[in-house]
Amino acid sequence: MPSEFELIARHFTRAPPAGGAVLLGVGDDCALLTPPAGEALAVSTDMLVEGRHFFPGTDPEALGHKALAVNLSDLAAMGARPLGFTLALALPAADEDWVAAFARGLLALADTHAIPLVGGDTTRGPLNLCISVFGSVAPAQALRRDGARPGDEIWVSGELGAARLAVETLNGNADFGALPDAAALRLHRPQPRLGLGLALRGIASAAIDVSDGLLGDLAHILERSGVSAVVDADAVPAGSALASLDRPRRQAFALNGGDDYELCFTAPAGRHQQVIAAAGEAGVPVTRIGRILHGSGLQVVDATGQPLAVASRSFDHFAEP
Amino acid sequence: MPSEFELIARHFTRAPPAGGAVLLGVGDDCALLTPPAGEALAVSTDMLVEGRHFFPGTDPEALGHKALAVNLSDLAAMGARPLGFTLALALPAADEDWVAAFARGLLALADTHAIPLVGGDTTRGPLNLCISVFGSVAPAQALRRDGARPGDEIWVSGELGAARLAVETLNGNADFGALPDAAALRLHRPQPRLGLGLALRGIASAAIDVSDGLLGDLAHILERSGVSAVVDADAVPAGSALASLDRPRRQAFALNGGDDYELCFTAPAGRHQQVIAAAGEAGVPVTRIGRILHGSGLQVVDATGQPLAVASRSFDHFAEP
Repeated sequence: MPSEFELIARHFTRAPPAGGAVLLGVGDDCALLTPPAGEALAVSTDMLVEGRHFFPGTDPEALGHKALAVNLSDLAAMGARPLGFTLALALPAADEDWVAAFARGLLALADTHAIPLVGGDTTRGPLNLCISVFGSVAPAQALRRDGARPGDEIWVSGELGAARLAVETLNGNADFGALPDAAALRLHRPQPRLGLGLALRGIASAAIDVSDGLLGDLAHILERSGVSAVVDADAVPAGSALASLDRPRRQAFALNGGDDYELCFTAPAGRHQQVIAAAGEAGVPVTRIGRILHGSGLQVVDATGQPLAVASRSFDHFAEP
Repeated sequence: MPSEFELIARHFTRAPPAGGAVLLGVGDDCALLTPPAGEALAVSTDMLVEGRHFFPGTDPEALGHKALAVNLSDLAAMGARPLGFTLALALPAADEDWVAAFARGLLALADTHAIPLVGGDTTRGPLNLCISVFGSVAPAQALRRDGARPGDEIWVSGELGAARLAVETLNGNADFGALPDAAALRLHRPQPRLGLGLALRGIASAAIDVSDGLLGDLAHILERSGVSAVVDADAVPAGSALASLDRPRRQAFALNGGDDYELCFTAPAGRHQQVIAAAGEAGVPVTRIGRILHGSGLQVVDATGQPLAVASRSFDHFAEP
């Protein structure tokens, strides 16, 4: 059986790219990174647990992609340019095929964005993936959660809800029939919106990535910014994979589905055209879904302005089912 | 039962210290850190798994201390000044007493070194702690593993082997009787040698922290530096808790025990007095234990220069027991 050190060396070690921000990569007590002069280092950590964040037996290549993607999504939501990442991995056994496939998925996404793996840890234990990502952004341009102001428009990228349909189907919920490919792809291969995050610097006033569900995530912006909002549920772009669902269910998945990894952001109404241009530059569609108001709370209305009774409910890992 | 967000807010949220390197702490998509001008960011990640890195039922306050200490030890081994850390935590249940005690131990050590918690993640799952630490160091002063040169002296801080005695005792190995307090303290409350790491900048040529066992960790320096070494086993400072053991066992624990979190480092012989002065400044004893040579490999001798047959064996998480 290959050792811990052999497994890491064989599947994860690569030479760091020359001339990048990585002075020292895998193989020392620490990695050394240098953000560009005048920029701050943006840091985020996410932990993925089998049976909680992914189904037992999930294809390891898809899992490698997703574990990195959800972390990069946090950099995107900050408007940060990725510099590198670390991986800590607990594995029930040194299953080389599994590790090889996982590394393939992980490193393929890393290569797409030219982000080196700079360090990590491997141990035996119940399957657990903990990734920390590092990026850089000028402090004044960072897309924080606390910058939304009354009058700002609320936007969301891409489409929402398809990943939730995939989860329901995989959970054996008989209401939904076979799993549409588009929904499976959204669940297993989310694409972090890094280009959009970069393009929105200096334009968006606040941003967050949609991981727990649109309304719950937007609520974090509202709370941190000390504002309220009205959202037009009929404007929220539901994934085409949801076309066969009835309207209440389609809206529920789009508004509260989770696992979308799109960006929800706000921008002054005067920058409407700049937002459209930034999205065009990044090649990602964006949709205006509401407006920031004074006060607190979040109101959901339909296209005619009638209030809808839609509970905002972020996913809570300790909530009773 | 408290929710994930409530648990985090109640026990882990603190205002970041004013004027420090932390521009933005817990509560956004990313934290923002600024290393001092001209310094690189040093990053390290360690994952601790129940039953692998600590005994099931370990006192959570001690565990909080240790989880951060072993990560800070990596910054110490790089000569980096700590700036902040993230914590990702998988818990079998939202046990508030456990979380409160864990946070106490963790934050007490963080306060000792004035290091803010800047972000993280909490989820339900088999107990798993993943910490990433961030520090800063001027690239030319970083204590890398690849700087050892033939003629350099090899040093180690503090005493070695006591933590291994504690592990053997707690594993029920009847050879060792009751657990000495000093050994328990070494296992449960290691003190990262941050002050020594800082004092050795510009003096030491290479450094590593002793986590897997002195000889195995020293071997990483040798390999990365392309050199060999001779170590005097009789010079290696065995912990006073090992005084009652016979000599072979005492030496085995000191040379290959693991979990010591002391620094093993090299420095040119001409800097011998500077090393002594740096250790005095840091208030940590250091002992010269050998010398770097040309070639490859690691030879262990006794005080008379006779070779000893001591296997270097780093801890491998996937090795058969």
